[in-house]
Amino acid sequence: MLRALQHMDRCLFTFRCSRVVSVQQATFRFNPQQCPPPLNSSIKLGLSARAAESPVLSCARRQTRSLAAMGTAEAPATATEAQIIDGKLTSELIRKEIALEAAAVKSKYGKAPGLAVVLVGSRGDSATYVRSKKKACADVGIESFGRELPEDVSEEELLKVVQDYNADDDVHGILVQLPLPKHINEQRILDAISLDKDVDGFHPFNIGSLAMRGRQPLYTSCTPKGCLELLRRYNVPISGKRAVVLGRSNIVGMPVAHLLQAEDATVTVVHSKTKDAQALCAEADILIAAIGKAEMVKADWVKPGAAVIDVGTNPVPDDSKKSGYRLVGDVAFREVKEKAGFITPVPGGVGPMTITMLLQNCTEGAQRILEKARAGPSS
Amino acid sequence: MLRALQHMDRCLFTFRCSRVVSVQQATFRFNPQQCPPPLNSSIKLGLSARAAESPVLSCARRQTRSLAAMGTAEAPATATEAQIIDGKLTSELIRKEIALEAAAVKSKYGKAPGLAVVLVGSRGDSATYVRSKKKACADVGIESFGRELPEDVSEEELLKVVQDYNADDDVHGILVQLPLPKHINEQRILDAISLDKDVDGFHPFNIGSLAMRGRQPLYTSCTPKGCLELLRRYNVPISGKRAVVLGRSNIVGMPVAHLLQAEDATVTVVHSKTKDAQALCAEADILIAAIGKAEMVKADWVKPGAAVIDVGTNPVPDDSKKSGYRLVGDVAFREVKEKAGFITPVPGGVGPMTITMLLQNCTEGAQRILEKARAGPSS
Repeated sequence: MLRALQHMDRCLFTFRCSRVVSVQQATFRFNPQQCPPPLNSSIKLGLSARAAESPVLSCARRQTRSLAAMGTAEAPATATEAQIIDGKLTSELIRKEIALEAAAVKSKYGKAPGLAVVLVGSRGDSATYVRSKKKACADVGIESFGRELPEDVSEEELLKVVQDYNADDDVHGILVQLPLPKHINEQRILDAISLDKDVDGFHPFNIGSLAMRGRQPLYTSCTPKGCLELLRRYNVPISGKRAVVLGRSNIVGMPVAHLLQAEDATVTVVHSKTKDAQALCAEADILIAAIGKAEMVKADWVKPGAAVIDVGTNPVPDDSKKSGYRLVGDVAFREVKEKAGFITPVPGGVGPMTITMLLQNCTEGAQRILEKARAGPSS
Repeated sequence: MLRALQHMDRCLFTFRCSRVVSVQQATFRFNPQQCPPPLNSSIKLGLSARAAESPVLSCARRQTRSLAAMGTAEAPATATEAQIIDGKLTSELIRKEIALEAAAVKSKYGKAPGLAVVLVGSRGDSATYVRSKKKACADVGIESFGRELPEDVSEEELLKVVQDYNADDDVHGILVQLPLPKHINEQRILDAISLDKDVDGFHPFNIGSLAMRGRQPLYTSCTPKGCLELLRRYNVPISGKRAVVLGRSNIVGMPVAHLLQAEDATVTVVHSKTKDAQALCAEADILIAAIGKAEMVKADWVKPGAAVIDVGTNPVPDDSKKSGYRLVGDVAFREVKEKAGFITPVPGGVGPMTITMLLQNCTEGAQRILEKARAGPSS
């Protein structure tokens, strides 16, 4: 049964990853016979309710499309639109793996992975994120810990909370929800998180280890890791490709540039001071948009067939919505999807992957911490 | 007298930084009236014997060349060859500043800056570097400490040496000469160096702080820092320019890319897996060659007027030399200097700057450590 599920799972992915591209436009060429790369977990399993709708049809389609997707003369290919990279579906699949891993941790060490989330103040968006994180933890069997501190909490009090979680054997990951109020030195708080529990990967030691060849960070920041995971799961080739990262933030642009370079892409970081950002982006085989400007990336910013990963989530006024706004990415989705080879939607692209990578980091971290504790202090 | 020396010093630099460039070829435009940016030291002084040869002539030339250098119609400019960025001269000037700073440290805290260099084994090149470092320290008034350990020293013994220097109040900078023998875990040794004394800037925490916006590393690696210092002292504009870094090593390529980006350049890192490295390099306003391949960068790799910083030092056979070889850079100097706007020679370019930046790091570090000690443990 497990084998059958695995096969169906892979077929579904393969179908989703195969598409019809014109020979001229094809930056990437797919082999539709090739299944997606192995999942991180040693156990791969299951389909979400949505994914399970028609795996057999998917397999059949895969076969009938195979020639066309190769762009052979027998089946001349015509470009239609980009393959949508489905972050929601991918997240669902990965969360199933994580649930299995979390259960395995509990069974092996008698303790579930534990994540502590610290929220300061009452920002609505932060509170929403924290709630989603707690729910996501519960869904995969990670135990949630948390503290909600008033806006005027002192730096020392907050530091004490972090230090207590550092010393707490039930907590394997600590996340301090950013931004913090202005009277608090954010760097001091983040640096105080034990390296072993820095599930957000924002500690300079982890960033340094990410930047340096021959080193591995204990944790890689969740959004950048999610971007790479999407590229990998959709078989987008990275090595030797031109990648442009639009934005140079500490939490997305900079680390994602290092991750792409570690996979042998040739990376250019484009930012607010770049002249002719449009022309540079249009040279990219892989374009990561993380600049926080609503629909800044138009079709003429994109190379035909490129893979476009949209990290932006920008609210724009929309009277048709109850809230009065809707979320859009940094990419003008409608026009770019006519030109790109792959594209992530907003919402439903990178967003769901961020929390999923946090859950993954936490589970892997718990395993590492608990194994170390079992091996004893000399290890 | 001091003022007169300062003026001569600045005139000399100004002359060296002004050149005749054609309007088409001018990637950078100079204002020959503009003196080089202020030196780091609050006191700027002195000329080396070489620099003092003809400062008056330099000043006169500066004035006569000013119109031509502006590329006006009255004095149509024609391209000749690149301005040579003289790392030796620049080093001499900076070392004079450092000597003053070191003397000020000794006078203020009753202790000279101290640098400990640890050498393992008997590699000829390493021993040569260590000797040059010791001599350079003596010249500027930095006290040298050092240990020479046998090739078969154990990792624990080496670690103990580092820890002893960490605890030694007379030592403000620790440098472990690389590479280490294979039986020693290099990462473990480098990570053991106290962050406060990591004058080489190779600790992941320092690299992470370099990579992250809004942070400053305690120390920046010496060769990358030297490259930036040369660009700054020769008034090469960086902000908004396209920079290509050829090579992605931990000690040059990666940190220099971060330094350039911190100055608002748009940076592309080109490496062994890059397709069409030549075309990418030819787009660069600033090209940093640090790939370790003798004369790989030919004229057609360089944009007219670009600033080319050559970090390579590659031995090539040369029967005319006693040693049987000579050192060349990663850049084909002769042909590239006909096309570039600026170029560093090898030797005499980046090389001398590396040790100079080490001396600067050590002196600044000593000041920081001694000030902290004076302020007391609560600081």
